[in-house]
Amino acid sequence: MARTVGIMGMGNVGSTVAHIIVAQGLADTLILYDRNQDKVNADTLDFQDAASLLSTHTTVINGQISDMKDCDIIISAIGRIDLIKVGNVDRFVELRSNAPGVSDLSKELKDSGFHGILLVITNPNDVITGLYHKHTGFATNKVLGTGTYLDTSRLKRHVGEALGVDPRSVSGYILGEHGDSQFAAWSTVRVEGRPFTEIAKEKGIDLDQLEKDTRFGGGEVHAGKGYTNYAVATAATSLVQIIFSDAKSEAICSHYNEDFKGYISSPAIIGKNGVERVLELPLTDEENKNLLKSAQTIKEKSEQFS
Amino acid sequence: MARTVGIMGMGNVGSTVAHIIVAQGLADTLILYDRNQDKVNADTLDFQDAASLLSTHTTVINGQISDMKDCDIIISAIGRIDLIKVGNVDRFVELRSNAPGVSDLSKELKDSGFHGILLVITNPNDVITGLYHKHTGFATNKVLGTGTYLDTSRLKRHVGEALGVDPRSVSGYILGEHGDSQFAAWSTVRVEGRPFTEIAKEKGIDLDQLEKDTRFGGGEVHAGKGYTNYAVATAATSLVQIIFSDAKSEAICSHYNEDFKGYISSPAIIGKNGVERVLELPLTDEENKNLLKSAQTIKEKSEQFS
Amino acid sequence: MARTVGIMGMGNVGSTVAHIIVAQGLADTLILYDRNQDKVNADTLDFQDAASLLSTHTTVINGQISDMKDCDIIISAIGRIDLIKVGNVDRFVELRSNAPGVSDLSKELKDSGFHGILLVITNPNDVITGLYHKHTGFATNKVLGTGTYLDTSRLKRHVGEALGVDPRSVSGYILGEHGDSQFAAWSTVRVEGRPFTEIAKEKGIDLDQLEKDTRFGGGEVHAGKGYTNYAVATAATSLVQIIFSDAKSEAICSHYNEDFKGYISSPAIIGKNGVERVLELPLTDEENKNLLKSAQTIKEKSEQFS
Amino acid sequence: MARTVGIMGMGNVGSTVAHIIVAQGLADTLILYDRNQDKVNADTLDFQDAASLLSTHTTVINGQISDMKDCDIIISAIGRIDLIKVGNVDRFVELRSNAPGVSDLSKELKDSGFHGILLVITNPNDVITGLYHKHTGFATNKVLGTGTYLDTSRLKRHVGEALGVDPRSVSGYILGEHGDSQFAAWSTVRVEGRPFTEIAKEKGIDLDQLEKDTRFGGGEVHAGKGYTNYAVATAATSLVQIIFSDAKSEAICSHYNEDFKGYISSPAIIGKNGVERVLELPLTDEENKNLLKSAQTIKEKSEQFS
Repeated sequence: MARTVGIMGMGNVGSTVAHIIVAQGLADTLILYDRNQDKVNADTLDFQDAASLLSTHTTVINGQISDMKDCDIIISAIGRIDLIKVGNVDRFVELRSNAPGVSDLSKELKDSGFHGILLVITNPNDVITGLYHKHTGFATNKVLGTGTYLDTSRLKRHVGEALGVDPRSVSGYILGEHGDSQFAAWSTVRVEGRPFTEIAKEKGIDLDQLEKDTRFGGGEVHAGKGYTNYAVATAATSLVQIIFSDAKSEAICSHYNEDFKGYISSPAIIGKNGVERVLELPLTDEENKNLLKSAQTIKEKSEQFS
Repeated sequence: MARTVGIMGMGNVGSTVAHIIVAQGLADTLILYDRNQDKVNADTLDFQDAASLLSTHTTVINGQISDMKDCDIIISAIGRIDLIKVGNVDRFVELRSNAPGVSDLSKELKDSGFHGILLVITNPNDVITGLYHKHTGFATNKVLGTGTYLDTSRLKRHVGEALGVDPRSVSGYILGEHGDSQFAAWSTVRVEGRPFTEIAKEKGIDLDQLEKDTRFGGGEVHAGKGYTNYAVATAATSLVQIIFSDAKSEAICSHYNEDFKGYISSPAIIGKNGVERVLELPLTDEENKNLLKSAQTIKEKSEQFS
Repeated sequence: MARTVGIMGMGNVGSTVAHIIVAQGLADTLILYDRNQDKVNADTLDFQDAASLLSTHTTVINGQISDMKDCDIIISAIGRIDLIKVGNVDRFVELRSNAPGVSDLSKELKDSGFHGILLVITNPNDVITGLYHKHTGFATNKVLGTGTYLDTSRLKRHVGEALGVDPRSVSGYILGEHGDSQFAAWSTVRVEGRPFTEIAKEKGIDLDQLEKDTRFGGGEVHAGKGYTNYAVATAATSLVQIIFSDAKSEAICSHYNEDFKGYISSPAIIGKNGVERVLELPLTDEENKNLLKSAQTIKEKSEQFS
Repeated sequence: MARTVGIMGMGNVGSTVAHIIVAQGLADTLILYDRNQDKVNADTLDFQDAASLLSTHTTVINGQISDMKDCDIIISAIGRIDLIKVGNVDRFVELRSNAPGVSDLSKELKDSGFHGILLVITNPNDVITGLYHKHTGFATNKVLGTGTYLDTSRLKRHVGEALGVDPRSVSGYILGEHGDSQFAAWSTVRVEGRPFTEIAKEKGIDLDQLEKDTRFGGGEVHAGKGYTNYAVATAATSLVQIIFSDAKSEAICSHYNEDFKGYISSPAIIGKNGVERVLELPLTDEENKNLLKSAQTIKEKSEQFS
């Protein structure tokens, strides 16, 4: 009956994920963990202080990984974003910084007896999700990353803005790595009941510019405040809601790709078992080439930590 | 028809208020302002990037005070919390730091033609709310502060925890200054259908300790992360919802007190006109004395800036 | 992980309860049962037709009691309200009509292996909840009725209206039978930080009239449309939310009373185990007398079906 | 600031629309009107009785059309569904029954000075919406009908069920009349990132059967309970939310078609001005023919009442 979520890593992203969960009552019990005991303690108290003002009830606990054993979903939001230089979001620096923590946490997760869904936000997302999968040995469908779910939302914003249309009325995907090798799969992007490429042609919209704006959108946010949190946390909690309600919704996320033998983002059907089914998109040859290239980029980075 | 909110100050508190408003669709248009253009720009983009993932629509704008003219509610969340030393939350340092900004913003607000409700979170809350009132010349009912709404929520948490009861099932108030001279009006605190003082006596609960925990609860959060944001932002958005729906709900906030000729927290009926009516609580003599003392503390601080 | 609710009886009340659950995503799976297969089939389809327009996902199933085995909560909303004459809400007619169904369903529930919470809306509520308890043999804390939760909400409306205050800002209880022997426990009713009786005296508000309006409020709704559904369904789903989130909230409902050895409404702490704890209210002598009288009324009705 | 909605007609559909608005706080003030004073009075009281149990506040008023002058949105839900024989949903019988009321209400609306959006649920939807437009003389963009928004949701359900996918992950439209001449525009239907027709071919899904199930879905619900309410009310409130938040969302509804000089359903961008922009779909020749045929059907029915 109880919906229980654990969050590992209470930096800007983890605490925003926690806030959405508490503010909207998405879980009944929320267990927070961070190596920085002062920060996680402060956030726990801050959430508890708000409890009398909310329309839902969530029990918030400052705990350990071993307390997360019976969680339905555990979210990894660890990360050293502070190491990233503004104007130079080098996800490889992040990788070197975050990988050791992933190895330790994986062991703790495994030892705890946890058998739920592991949702990874930590960057570089595809590599880190793959590392969690490898180190925990959890079933493939149960380990997934937020991947390009955020980038896809960013694409929808840019397309929507170009046409004066709600981004929720745009469909389509950013495929590949949650990183620089990602690309807009324009053949999948539709709005106003038509392929967006057609409309863009008619209106003289520059697709390349729009793709660049999407790819470097995170960099702009990072440059302004030193991190990004609201959109990526919204992507993560959107997946949490889909998983909890077993919605069998289509969503893009980083999941294990049988062809590439690695983690990369493409659309899938998400439900209580995590990735229920992977979709086969009818991509153009160029898009397939871009996807392959992006997969190789991820693989290269991953191999340096295998 | 449109519900429009403006936020002045996009630090930890302002951006959390903005996030709640966007995530829950509390406003249709949200105008954000901060002197730090990079920060407000980053937050605006971050919110816009999340838009395709939400179930409601809010147009988020990075604007100026003059753009807020037609806002229904403007929230002041400016503040230099970074000046406050951990372990020593000296609201007077805040005052010296925040007062000049209040004076400037008040002028801009007045010049803009704004005629809605001004909700102040900036600390020291009672003094700053009073300064806004003085500098803008807005009607008394239309300028209010979050005051001890947060402290009252914190009190409910502590009482709830002591009895294993949902804090939403506790009633009662922290009265006076949103600062060290505040006090728990125990005669107003009820839970389980009885005065809490009776239960505390039966169970040997130390009221003084509980009051101290409440008073210094913010300090503990501040010590852990250098600021507090979630609970106070929840208090502010709770008032926003009450005002927008003209609920005529009872809530405690910092409002103009005719007896003290100054701003201080006591319960009031809140609606579309802001403070619709102030309640007369049947306090004990000691509580009345404490309230008077707290009012004097606020007055002294205020006078140094008159 | 999954939140599963079963509803027995899809008349006006049951279908409104189902609608709230689906519209707000309170459960992931909702199993509906009614002897009238056409009605339950129509409602199931109607809910499924709405699914693409909602922000949450609920799987709605037209099922049997045996399918409800693993439900967390089962709600009894069976009833022959059509037998009740307008202007003469004789709950005894309801009892004669509803009791046999309760006996049959209890057997089915028991046989199914169901071990969750049984929440009864069926009238006469206290008698029927007692019959369910007796026939199923389920633990006392796991069988509860909506009782005077609705009447208490009605009282808050009348008090709120008298003062121009949000009914959510009124506290206090209608105690006893969900029927004519109920009474307003005026000593428990507070608003604006004071006992309502004091305010009523000052303002010349007629307490007896207000109590009568509350008691016969349901009759007025019934007279106008032949049934009541919205408020009582809201009361039921409010309890569902409290139970699912294990909120330990104070709520009034019909639960087993050790003193009277029967079901009657008084406030309790509600959580995942149903009735977690019963509160001891400091009632006046007259209120205690009224409660005893109400308990006897319920007992007499119950005995005719023992 | 205030969000105000009026509902004309408080039968099964109107009262369900009102319930969604109250339960989710979509409006601050809700004005209800029905010729049947007993019914509207009963519903008003029933909603008010629930107020203390909700997390939002809506003032519910039993009023007249003249009270709706300042409403942002007025919804027409009048209708004599009781005249419709089960198994024979003859919308022409509805037309003859509902048209005179439309004429009277239009006059009252015009006289009131109402200048907001008029959203029509009353059937036969396209004809009635056209009649409202004609009789009120309101601007074309401000008068719209729910049209095939509901049928489109029904189509998504059937496609989703055929593939085990959340209906929210299906896109596409039922075009034309909200009646028997409607049709599934298969060229617009996409799911799993592909045209549904391709998937249907691969899996041997019978498109004609699926279209029939969609077209007669309402009939099946009607046969089971004598009316349909939940899905159509959800469609209407979905439009209300889009309009209130000025979301510029794509939605299908019945709006004035310049080519046909009449009301018929096709996708449009909806915002605070109602129909902000009509979309040009790249339909197949057959689909264009079907749309023309459907438009003629609507026109013929309309002419009998011109």
